[in-house]
Amino acid sequence: MTVADFDAWARTQLVAVEDCLSLWVPADAPAGLGTAMRYAVLDGGKRLRPLLALAAAHAVGGRRMASLRAACAVELIHAYSLVHDDMPCMDNDVLRRGKPTVHVQFGEAPAMLAGDAMQALAFEVLTPDSPAHPDEAIPAALQARLCGLLARAAGHAGMAGGQAIDLASVGRPLDEHSLRDMHHRKTGALLRASVMMGAACGDIDAAAWSALEVYGDSIGLAFQVIDDVLDVTQESDQLGKTAGKDVDANKPTYVSLMGLDAARRHAFELRDQAQSALTRSALRDTVWLSLLADKVVERDR
Amino acid sequence: MTVADFDAWARTQLVAVEDCLSLWVPADAPAGLGTAMRYAVLDGGKRLRPLLALAAAHAVGGRRMASLRAACAVELIHAYSLVHDDMPCMDNDVLRRGKPTVHVQFGEAPAMLAGDAMQALAFEVLTPDSPAHPDEAIPAALQARLCGLLARAAGHAGMAGGQAIDLASVGRPLDEHSLRDMHHRKTGALLRASVMMGAACGDIDAAAWSALEVYGDSIGLAFQVIDDVLDVTQESDQLGKTAGKDVDANKPTYVSLMGLDAARRHAFELRDQAQSALTRSALRDTVWLSLLADKVVERDR
Repeated sequence: MTVADFDAWARTQLVAVEDCLSLWVPADAPAGLGTAMRYAVLDGGKRLRPLLALAAAHAVGGRRMASLRAACAVELIHAYSLVHDDMPCMDNDVLRRGKPTVHVQFGEAPAMLAGDAMQALAFEVLTPDSPAHPDEAIPAALQARLCGLLARAAGHAGMAGGQAIDLASVGRPLDEHSLRDMHHRKTGALLRASVMMGAACGDIDAAAWSALEVYGDSIGLAFQVIDDVLDVTQESDQLGKTAGKDVDANKPTYVSLMGLDAARRHAFELRDQAQSALTRSALRDTVWLSLLADKVVERDR
Repeated sequence: MTVADFDAWARTQLVAVEDCLSLWVPADAPAGLGTAMRYAVLDGGKRLRPLLALAAAHAVGGRRMASLRAACAVELIHAYSLVHDDMPCMDNDVLRRGKPTVHVQFGEAPAMLAGDAMQALAFEVLTPDSPAHPDEAIPAALQARLCGLLARAAGHAGMAGGQAIDLASVGRPLDEHSLRDMHHRKTGALLRASVMMGAACGDIDAAAWSALEVYGDSIGLAFQVIDDVLDVTQESDQLGKTAGKDVDANKPTYVSLMGLDAARRHAFELRDQAQSALTRSALRDTVWLSLLADKVVERDR
């Protein structure tokens, strides 16, 4: 498989994800709520989490419809977290994915409600009513497992907990252990959940499951290290969001802690750990997961 | 059964609910997040939604542990919605359940995060890991069904959608149909879901299910009509929240639409509809549901 094959695969997957999101994020939700939700989640972002879910499902021969629902649910959680994170009481950011942030475009209260409704929608997407086609049915046990994985990644032990540490750490020195704990929760938990939710759509043994957890943790951390690198090396228009804001906010980052070159090297070490985990998993087709690990550390935005 | 019997039953249920919430809302969530979550949900409120869930589970002979989880999950969603609703960008309220609101006590960003984490926690509570005691196990199909009912009640078609209509309606005249639609979503959806999640913990036929839906819709609306009545007839210290704020905000209410006496009469008609639905359900023991319907319209706070 080549990078060109990967790009073609990813394009196909993302068309399916966009189609599903467009179908499931309701244009007709009342009083402009649907408009704000669609603005927040459609046509934007790298879609790394959906690709991780679908690549993991590919690796385990997972159910297609379940994995598409998992992919869209994790993206909804990610997108809602950005909406709330950008609000004035949090990061107070005005630019996201190259567009005005949701609260700038629609107001603060609609932004908060849109985020709240997007979190609920993620769990609606994972618990569909009986489908017209039996092929699209998702076993109840899988629905429950996907809900559990997503809720734990989004909540106090995962993303929301990491954001709380992040808030409390502004202007305070964090050592590498604390910084790693914060990112493990704030971005790592949902990236790992993307992988594990995709993996849950198939049947794999405990050893393969553990190996994929290591893969998910490693690329989750690598993603954040590269985020810190890009925050100081790229311009806002390249990133599609405000560059340099962590430095401006005096937030601890991997770059401030270990320097630019060491941070880059660390990201590549984590990528190598992820690749080793894939080899250990002995799963039949981990090529997309492997290429995604490369993309995570080689990205420029 | 007497009102005294009901009070004893309710006290017993609420001790169990408080014990579970205290166990499941983590004191040790990082950076003060757990403290804010516990402040928002423990030791406060009428606990109407948990009681509805447990009374419905009683009526259908439902599984105990599942119904306790359902009861706590709906209360977590309710409590998170109050935290977000009280924030400056929404109702900007400083008093709730007789205490300073969460953002007054902890700050806006921690309040938003605590609300977000509480929504996720509701779905964590509904999807427990395998329990130590088999008695406490909840079938995966029931977990998935409870998640689906709760997500739809909390999201764009339910509570969040109703809040969006509410926001957009300040200072604008709403006719009774529009006001009913708003409340049907904003408060009605979660009250109805409380009943239906309790009912889902047992096995009932479609006719009984439909009758309970009518019961849930009727008391949901009655609850809101009485809320509007209390907003103009009671003082803040009696309500434990700011009285008169709907009038001050020029929000449409049942009282502004139909007058105080007609609003009261309407609430009692809705209570009677709820009681008729219970009779039609032919369920074996609807006494607690029946007495809860009375409590909803006879309450003074």
